[in-house]
Amino acid sequence: MTLALAPPITIERWFNTPEPIALDQLRGKVVVMEAFQMLCPGCVSHGIPQAQRIREAFSQENVVVLGLHSVFEHHAAMTPVSLEAFLHEYKITFPVGVDTPHASGMPETMQAYGMQGTPTLLLIDAKGRLRKQWLGAASDLIVGAEIMRLVIEHHAGITGAT
Amino acid sequence: MTLALAPPITIERWFNTPEPIALDQLRGKVVVMEAFQMLCPGCVSHGIPQAQRIREAFSQENVVVLGLHSVFEHHAAMTPVSLEAFLHEYKITFPVGVDTPHASGMPETMQAYGMQGTPTLLLIDAKGRLRKQWLGAASDLIVGAEIMRLVIEHHAGITGAT
Amino acid sequence: MTLALAPPITIERWFNTPEPIALDQLRGKVVVMEAFQMLCPGCVSHGIPQAQRIREAFSQENVVVLGLHSVFEHHAAMTPVSLEAFLHEYKITFPVGVDTPHASGMPETMQAYGMQGTPTLLLIDAKGRLRKQWLGAASDLIVGAEIMRLVIEHHAGITGAT
Amino acid sequence: MTLALAPPITIERWFNTPEPIALDQLRGKVVVMEAFQMLCPGCVSHGIPQAQRIREAFSQENVVVLGLHSVFEHHAAMTPVSLEAFLHEYKITFPVGVDTPHASGMPETMQAYGMQGTPTLLLIDAKGRLRKQWLGAASDLIVGAEIMRLVIEHHAGITGAT
Repeated sequence: MTLALAPPITIERWFNTPEPIALDQLRGKVVVMEAFQMLCPGCVSHGIPQAQRIREAFSQENVVVLGLHSVFEHHAAMTPVSLEAFLHEYKITFPVGVDTPHASGMPETMQAYGMQGTPTLLLIDAKGRLRKQWLGAASDLIVGAEIMRLVIEHHAGITGAT
Repeated sequence: MTLALAPPITIERWFNTPEPIALDQLRGKVVVMEAFQMLCPGCVSHGIPQAQRIREAFSQENVVVLGLHSVFEHHAAMTPVSLEAFLHEYKITFPVGVDTPHASGMPETMQAYGMQGTPTLLLIDAKGRLRKQWLGAASDLIVGAEIMRLVIEHHAGITGAT
Repeated sequence: MTLALAPPITIERWFNTPEPIALDQLRGKVVVMEAFQMLCPGCVSHGIPQAQRIREAFSQENVVVLGLHSVFEHHAAMTPVSLEAFLHEYKITFPVGVDTPHASGMPETMQAYGMQGTPTLLLIDAKGRLRKQWLGAASDLIVGAEIMRLVIEHHAGITGAT
Repeated sequence: MTLALAPPITIERWFNTPEPIALDQLRGKVVVMEAFQMLCPGCVSHGIPQAQRIREAFSQENVVVLGLHSVFEHHAAMTPVSLEAFLHEYKITFPVGVDTPHASGMPETMQAYGMQGTPTLLLIDAKGRLRKQWLGAASDLIVGAEIMRLVIEHHAGITGAT
């Protein structure tokens, strides 16, 4: 099996980072991306806290956590101004990119990854390939295990899914 | 001890009700008012779910639950447009009034009641008098008990705190 | 409607009290009785913590909390020796009586009240009459309300259900 | 660094297995061992449910979950008869061994591993070496990651800590 590179992320505006971030800058690290909407209850109760726990559990040398604000409903209610206050109130300190809106209502990165809703948690390996994508509530045990799988693969020079 | 009437609520806009609501229309019922901000984490995790449980636990013959959106920070992030989406996503069906903004930043009803933050839970008795006001997380046992105290007082013709 | 007195409780052995307790000594107070088994998961996760919250939420002037260890299965596994360690480990400080075993397997007080399982929460009013009996997980809001109903009835001289 | 083999487990009596289990029979699999006491609140609320989640999250081809009932206090309260009822009520289906009592009060396996209390979670790699030992509540993210580390090491022929 050979895996293609994960699609680029198309970001309108970043928070919590001095410079824009592109996935190809992150080769050599496992990327955990949490796609959410600030008014999605399952994102607030499960997805965001899980992303925060991942950020604390793993070394940033090995694992990068990114948020992706992929608004596909109630667009006027979840503008970047509202998102900024949300990030402040929920003490979210990892970088969060606003997924670029698209005329269809479904933003561009969400489309590129074929996401079906929020929260969606995505794992991209150190070679830039999409390896896991969970819609809804994934268990910490399994997410922790899959992140470590990708970390170890990279450090041991295992070729993984290739 | 004699208690004055609770201050009127000053509402800019209502959701989940066909007509505006004034406290003096609610005499004869106990009024439970949940003051919140849609981006306040303690409101989302504790205050709003508690108000929803109260709505389910008590008969609407006896107890009316109202939400009060009292924004005192991040005003541009919590407009009525955003609130409307929030109420939809969190399945909040009781009437919610937007507390009228004031030049000080602290909205009018919040000021009139001397609230110190959100969430604040207020109990108004069947005679229209403010009887309890909790800032932060009040326990269900105590809130349930205090609501019943006011219901029983009214039904038994007890004069209560008067 | 006229209510009879609640049946006496038949206790083999008490913990956390210097003297045995009989219900008729408790007239003038609302009695909250938590019937449990130490190895019943719903008792450990819900019933016992709720009884502890009730003990903290209400004044012991008005409300007495009692535990009733009503073993109807795995009798050899839940002897008084095991119960004593359980009470210590779970920091249960209210009085707990061991319901007297009966040849049928179902202990005597459990039979007298027609309990169908554990946890069962019972409310006895200040006149000694059984007023509520919940099997399984009762909500704190409703339990708090019903306890307060009985407290207020007594203090206001309301005759209640009589 | 070279690691020695984990000490043998000294079991007085097994539940949930037709035959006694020795660690050296389990070479080639990662062994997760949950040391607990049935009346230890942190074991009941955290350790046991975590062990059950591990059993469900990982294939038994790769990961074996064992319980170890290491009683070091209230010995008369936590006999094998009581444990058997506990396992039934809490629906624990993985093998559980009773750690052999010792005159010191601290059972033999607990001593051999230098455990300081319960719950203790231990990870033994596919070569039989003790790799992790957590006292108290370990997070699912980290436990899942560390289990996967050992699974991958074994499958990839990585020598791990040796």
